[in-house]
Amino acid sequence: MRTLDPDKHALQLEAILEAAKTCFARTGFHKTSTEAICSEAGVSSGKLFHYFPSKKAIILAVVHEQTRQLGDYIGELLQREDLSTALLECLDVILLLAGNTTERRLILEIAAEATRDGDVAALNTAGDRLLADGLAAILRGAAMRGQVSLIIPLEHAVRFLMIVIDGILYRASIDAGFDPAKERASLLTTIRSALRIVEGDPDA
Amino acid sequence: MRTLDPDKHALQLEAILEAAKTCFARTGFHKTSTEAICSEAGVSSGKLFHYFPSKKAIILAVVHEQTRQLGDYIGELLQREDLSTALLECLDVILLLAGNTTERRLILEIAAEATRDGDVAALNTAGDRLLADGLAAILRGAAMRGQVSLIIPLEHAVRFLMIVIDGILYRASIDAGFDPAKERASLLTTIRSALRIVEGDPDA
Repeated sequence: MRTLDPDKHALQLEAILEAAKTCFARTGFHKTSTEAICSEAGVSSGKLFHYFPSKKAIILAVVHEQTRQLGDYIGELLQREDLSTALLECLDVILLLAGNTTERRLILEIAAEATRDGDVAALNTAGDRLLADGLAAILRGAAMRGQVSLIIPLEHAVRFLMIVIDGILYRASIDAGFDPAKERASLLTTIRSALRIVEGDPDA
Repeated sequence: MRTLDPDKHALQLEAILEAAKTCFARTGFHKTSTEAICSEAGVSSGKLFHYFPSKKAIILAVVHEQTRQLGDYIGELLQREDLSTALLECLDVILLLAGNTTERRLILEIAAEATRDGDVAALNTAGDRLLADGLAAILRGAAMRGQVSLIIPLEHAVRFLMIVIDGILYRASIDAGFDPAKERASLLTTIRSALRIVEGDPDA
């Protein structure tokens, strides 16, 4: 019996997840068939079911993968010396995601599915907490280093940032006249002023 | 032939719209039957259809009524001498709406329906523009009177406020741990700092 090359295994898994994300963003979770994912990924349905026993397993893997990437990104930001720039860069990434139709739709599809499915909700809430805890750790570190000078309690500053992040993704979805890239300069200036960020320059 | 008392007419219409809002918030537009609205309003189906030929006509009337109320409210705010307090009070109203399950669900139901129905979308977009234009007029007046000292262009400040409003309503919907009333003090402080509001006190 042939054993599967681990690299090939990882590549196939990644191709299936990428294809699933594209399909989910295009037609929504419920209107996406496993056949469409197979076709997009260029794999047989036998291969797909070898990795994922059901469409729900694919959905969960997509959310899990996004949470893992978010965790890696926050971990990387926390290693930085200049945490106020790290915070503004994090908002920059949100603006980029909001400007990308596929990414934005995927995030809202996951949020919508979370209202219908408890397992998706649990994973999505974990991702939400990871982001909130990450922002709290970044802000705490920045405050300790004198890079921000918060005028409100830290937990409220975190919730304010979560509101702004939600709002960016939501407005980009409902308002065709809203271009996240065009809001960037003003938004960073506003957040800097709102949180009294005394250092930090994501363009440095 | 009896003529309908105009006051009674207005009261019946209002009762039907209030009942429809309650039902739509409780079960969503699509799962709400006209029978449920009749039962909630305490009117016969004949009476309901006398006012509204279809469920969609009720939905449109609800959105139209909300837009009318919003327009009245903004018109009233614009009469104030202290426009920076008016602006913060407007955010206060959003926090109140976000804390009210029925109002919050209704707003998100309308937004969801707008993605599916062009007529609802047109009315909803008109309401969205009314709010954005109202915030712009309030900010412009406040700036002229020296009550705010904007550090970003006015149109970006308006979009920032729209993002914050969207974010408050969205987060209140998805995060059971988010209590809009508890965020009030910090949020108003943050907005004050973000927009360099030099006067204004909604508790005055």
